Amino acid sequence: MQRLTQNELISGLAAIVGDAHLSTSRVDKIAYSADFWPKAQIWKMGGDVERYPPDCIVWPANASEVSAILKYCDEHAVPVVPYGAGSGVCGGTVPIHGGVVIDVKRMRQVRAIDPDSLTVEVDAGMNGQHLEDALNARGFTLGHFPSSIMCSTVGGWIAARSGGQFSSRYGKIEDMILGLEVVLPGGRVLTTHHRLPGAPDWTQLIVGSEGTLGIITSAELKICRLPEARRFRAFRFRTVKDGLRGMRAVMQAGIRPIVLRLYDPFDSLIALGKETENPVEKSKEDGPMGTLRNIFARALARPTERLQQAMAPVKFAATKAALATGLAVPTLTNRLANAAPSPCLLIVGVEGSETESQADLGKAIDILTREGGADSGSRIGEAWLEKRYAVGFKQTKMMNLGAWVDTMEVATTWDRLEGLYETVRRAVTPNAFIMAHFSHAYREGCSIYFTMAGHRKDPERAEQHYERTWELAMDAVLAAGGTVSHHHGVGLHKVAAMAREHGGMLKAWYALKHTLDPHGIMNPGKLFPPEVIEPGEPAAEMDLERRAI
Amino acid sequence: MQRLTQNELISGLAAIVGDAHLSTSRVDKIAYSADFWPKAQIWKMGGDVERYPPDCIVWPANASEVSAILKYCDEHAVPVVPYGAGSGVCGGTVPIHGGVVIDVKRMRQVRAIDPDSLTVEVDAGMNGQHLEDALNARGFTLGHFPSSIMCSTVGGWIAARSGGQFSSRYGKIEDMILGLEVVLPGGRVLTTHHRLPGAPDWTQLIVGSEGTLGIITSAELKICRLPEARRFRAFRFRTVKDGLRGMRAVMQAGIRPIVLRLYDPFDSLIALGKETENPVEKSKEDGPMGTLRNIFARALARPTERLQQAMAPVKFAATKAALATGLAVPTLTNRLANAAPSPCLLIVGVEGSETESQADLGKAIDILTREGGADSGSRIGEAWLEKRYAVGFKQTKMMNLGAWVDTMEVATTWDRLEGLYETVRRAVTPNAFIMAHFSHAYREGCSIYFTMAGHRKDPERAEQHYERTWELAMDAVLAAGGTVSHHHGVGLHKVAAMAREHGGMLKAWYALKHTLDPHGIMNPGKLFPPEVIEPGEPAAEMDLERRAI
Repeated sequence: MQRLTQNELISGLAAIVGDAHLSTSRVDKIAYSADFWPKAQIWKMGGDVERYPPDCIVWPANASEVSAILKYCDEHAVPVVPYGAGSGVCGGTVPIHGGVVIDVKRMRQVRAIDPDSLTVEVDAGMNGQHLEDALNARGFTLGHFPSSIMCSTVGGWIAARSGGQFSSRYGKIEDMILGLEVVLPGGRVLTTHHRLPGAPDWTQLIVGSEGTLGIITSAELKICRLPEARRFRAFRFRTVKDGLRGMRAVMQAGIRPIVLRLYDPFDSLIALGKETENPVEKSKEDGPMGTLRNIFARALARPTERLQQAMAPVKFAATKAALATGLAVPTLTNRLANAAPSPCLLIVGVEGSETESQADLGKAIDILTREGGADSGSRIGEAWLEKRYAVGFKQTKMMNLGAWVDTMEVATTWDRLEGLYETVRRAVTPNAFIMAHFSHAYREGCSIYFTMAGHRKDPERAEQHYERTWELAMDAVLAAGGTVSHHHGVGLHKVAAMAREHGGMLKAWYALKHTLDPHGIMNPGKLFPPEVIEPGEPAAEMDLERRAI
Repeated sequence: MQRLTQNELISGLAAIVGDAHLSTSRVDKIAYSADFWPKAQIWKMGGDVERYPPDCIVWPANASEVSAILKYCDEHAVPVVPYGAGSGVCGGTVPIHGGVVIDVKRMRQVRAIDPDSLTVEVDAGMNGQHLEDALNARGFTLGHFPSSIMCSTVGGWIAARSGGQFSSRYGKIEDMILGLEVVLPGGRVLTTHHRLPGAPDWTQLIVGSEGTLGIITSAELKICRLPEARRFRAFRFRTVKDGLRGMRAVMQAGIRPIVLRLYDPFDSLIALGKETENPVEKSKEDGPMGTLRNIFARALARPTERLQQAMAPVKFAATKAALATGLAVPTLTNRLANAAPSPCLLIVGVEGSETESQADLGKAIDILTREGGADSGSRIGEAWLEKRYAVGFKQTKMMNLGAWVDTMEVATTWDRLEGLYETVRRAVTPNAFIMAHFSHAYREGCSIYFTMAGHRKDPERAEQHYERTWELAMDAVLAAGGTVSHHHGVGLHKVAAMAREHGGMLKAWYALKHTLDPHGIMNPGKLFPPEVIEPGEPAAEMDLERRAI
C-alpha cells in the first residue's frame, strides 16, 4: 500500500475532476465537517468548529469520475465520504477519518421518465424538490416528501433509507426503488436494475448502507400520476390509546391515507398552536420549539393561567432563563406538560381523484368517529400541509438559547406500540423533556417520532447529557421491541444500538464489507461499530488497513 | 475435519431426532431424490430413478433439533438440503451431493395470530392450505395462493421467493414477511424480526436464498381480514398488445385487483376450452395439456374443421402419435397455433367489501372497455377461480405420452414487456412449442408465464432437447432485459442464468456464503453456479471443503 502525502492526494484527485472541482479551503472543510446531527451542533456551539475536517472535497461530474476517484482512493487507502446535501441528522457524512468528501451534487439530471412503466431514472445528486418539480411538470409525482426535501438529494434518501411524510400511501424510499447504479471501491460500476427484482435483492442491500459499501450514482424509482385532489380532516381524541386505535382501524380498513398523524397531549398543544395561528405571523416564530419555549416561560410565570389558557396559547417573550430552568428540571417540566388539559390531535389526509378522495375521507371520518374522535374540521390539516417543511431549518435558534433538541424516530408493530411509547417516555423523563407524535402508519405498525430537549450551560456537559439521554432512550427502544431507526438512518449516532439490534447478523455484515471494501475506505465508522478513532488524524498519510471495519 | 462413515452419520443424527424420525430406506431415498423439476421427471421416465439419493432423511421436531443437526453436519462437512413439501419445479431440493435431507414438515404449528398488528407467526413446515384454513377460521387470510398451495410449505415459499395467484393485490411472499427465524450452519438460531425493518434488511437476504445460507424454521407474516365479496369479469382483446395496454391501465389506475391475467391467442383457446366446459367432466382431463393434446390431434386430423371450431373445442381422443408429431415440428405447430382465430382472453378479479368490490370492478370494466376489450361476463373468471389449483398435479400424464412440458416465469417493466414476449417466442419457436399468459401484474411491470413443450423418444435426447430449449429461452430473456425468475425460484435449473443476471454482485454473494457457511454444507450447488459435481458421490465420507461454493 503506497501512502500519499497530502499534496500527492490533491494532485491525483485534481487530475480526475479538474482544479475547479476540488477544494482544500478552510471554509469548505468546516462546511463539510458536520451535517445536521445535533451533537455536531453542540460541538460547534462550544466553539469546536473544526473537529473532523476532510482533507479535501471533490465534485465529480459523473459516474466515471466517481469510479476513477474510488479506484485512486482504494489504491492508496484514503477514506471517502459520499455527500449529497448534508442534511442528515445522525452524523452519517461527518468525515471522522478525514479523507475525501465526494459531493455528488453536480450529478443532477433526470435521465429519463417512462410514462408507460411509471418510472424515473435520476442522478443521485438531484435535489429532492427539484426532482419533484420536474415530475410535476410532466404530470407525475414521486410521492416522497421528507421534511428535508428542499435540502436533501436522491442519493442521500437511498443511502439513509429515507421516509417521507406521505409514506403511509407511497411507502418509504426502499419501496419506490427498482434499481440503482453504484460505484464500488476499486472503481467498478454496478447496476442492480433487474426491473422486477429476483433474489438475492442486492438493491435492498445498498439501500440504507450509508456509503459504507459504495457510492450511489443514479437510481430508477417508481412514480405516480399527480392526484386530482387532496382532503384533510382533524380529530381530537381523549387519550393516546384511543387515537392509536383509530389510526390502526383506518390503516387496516384498506384506505391508504397520505397522512395519518397522532400527537400526544403536549405535542398536540404545540401542533394546535402552530397550525391554527396566522401563518405569516407564525413564520417569525421558531416552529414547535418556539411554542415550547413560550409554554415553558408561561408555565414558570403563571401556572394556573397556563392551565386555563393552554388550549389557546398566547405569545410570551421567550426567555433564555425560562427555557434553561424548564429543561434543568425535566421531570417537573414533563409533569407540567403532561398535566396540560389537551386532547390528542389526529390529522388524516387522503388524495386521488375527486370522487375517490371524497370516498376515502368519508370512510376515514366514519371510522375515526366510531373510535371516539371528535371531528375538528379540515383547517388544521390544511395548515399542517402548508407548513410541513418549516421545521427542519429552525434548530439553531433553539441551540442559540443554550438548549439541545433532537428527534428520535423508532417503530414497531401495533401490539407493541403503546408499550414502546410509555417505556421510552418513562426512561427519558428524569433526564430530558420529551414529547411525541405518531406518524408513518402502516397496516402492521407505526413509527413514533419523539422530540427530546435538554439544557446544560457548559458545552462539554451538554454533550454528555445529550449522550446519556440517547443511551437511556435507545435502551428503552430495544427493551420494548422497537427498531432503532425508522427513517433518519444510523450515521455515527446509532452504531452502538444498531450492533445490539442486528447482533446475530454482524458477522455477515463484516464479511460483505470486507469483500466489497477490502481497504475499509468507504465512510469508515458509520452504520455499524467502528474501531476506536482519533479525531483529526490526517487520513491521506495513514494506512487504512488497520482501521478496516 | 473429521470424516464420518455412513454408519457414524446415521447414529449421530438418530441421537438428535430419534430413530423414528430418520430414514435410510430405499423408497424414501428415491422419494427425496427429486422434486417437480421436469428435468428430474425426464430422468425418471428414462428409468433413472435413483440419480441423486440423499444419505438419509431426518424429520426434526423443532428449531433446537435443526440447530443440533446443523451443528453436527457442519462439524463433519456433511451437505444438508432443507425440504418442505418437495413441489419446487427447479430442482432446488435435489440432493446432488447426497448428505442429509432435513424435512421440516413436523414443524407445523401456527404459533400466534395477532389481530391487532394483523400478523401470524407460523412454523416453516406448515402446509400452505392448512395455514390458510387456520387463518380463515379466525376471519383472516394470508392472501398467498400459489398453484402449489396444497403441496407446498411456508418455509418453501420464503426460501424460493414464491408468488401467489393474487400477488397483484397482496404482493409476493417477500412483501408479506416481517421477519423470520433461521438456523445457520454451526447451529446458531437467528431471528430477523425487527418488526418494522431497518437496514440492512437481513430478512430480504434470506428470502429467496433457497437453503444456501440457513434453514428457515419460522416466519412472521402479514395477514388480512377475509373479504366480503369477490367479483370476476372476462374480456376479449384483439391482440396481446391491446390486452397489455388494458392491464397496465387497470394497475396504474390505483385499483388493486386480486387477479389480472391475459392469455395469448393459443393459451386463450386452452383457457376458454378449460374454463367454459363442465368442471366435473373436465376434471377427468389433463388440464391445459389435455386441451393442447386435443388440439394437436385435431390440427393434424382436420385442419379446416379445427379452424372453424376452434372457439368451442370438442374432445378428440388424445393420441401419442399426434402429440409426438406435433411437437417434432415445433415451428409448424407454433404457426398453426398462432393462426388460430382466437382473441386474447383477459380475466380480472377484485375483492373487498360488497360496495368496494363493486366499485373496483366497475372502474376496471370502464377502463378495459375503453382500451378495446369486449366484455365476456363473469362466468369464465369464476370457472378459473374454481380450477385454479388443478394444473400442478397433472404433468405426469403428459410425460407418460413421451413429451416434456415446462413453464417459465420471467418478468420486466411494461416498456419492455411486449419485447420480452416476442423475443422469447422467436427464440424458442424453432425448438419447441410455446404459448404464454401474462399474470402477476404490478404498477410498474408484469410477469410472463410461458409454457413450453417438446418431444423426443429417447430420454437422453429428450434431456438434451430440454436443456437446449431452456438455453435459448434464458438467452432471450436476458437479451430482452427480463429477470430470469419471478416466482419459481432458481434451484439447479437457472444457476447459469442467475450468474449472468447477477454477475456484478457474485463476489458479494460468495463472501456472504463463505462467512455464513464456511464448509459449504448448505444445499450446495443451488442458486449460483456450483463446482463440477459427480452424481451419487457418498457425501458422508467426503471432505466438503473442496466443494464449498
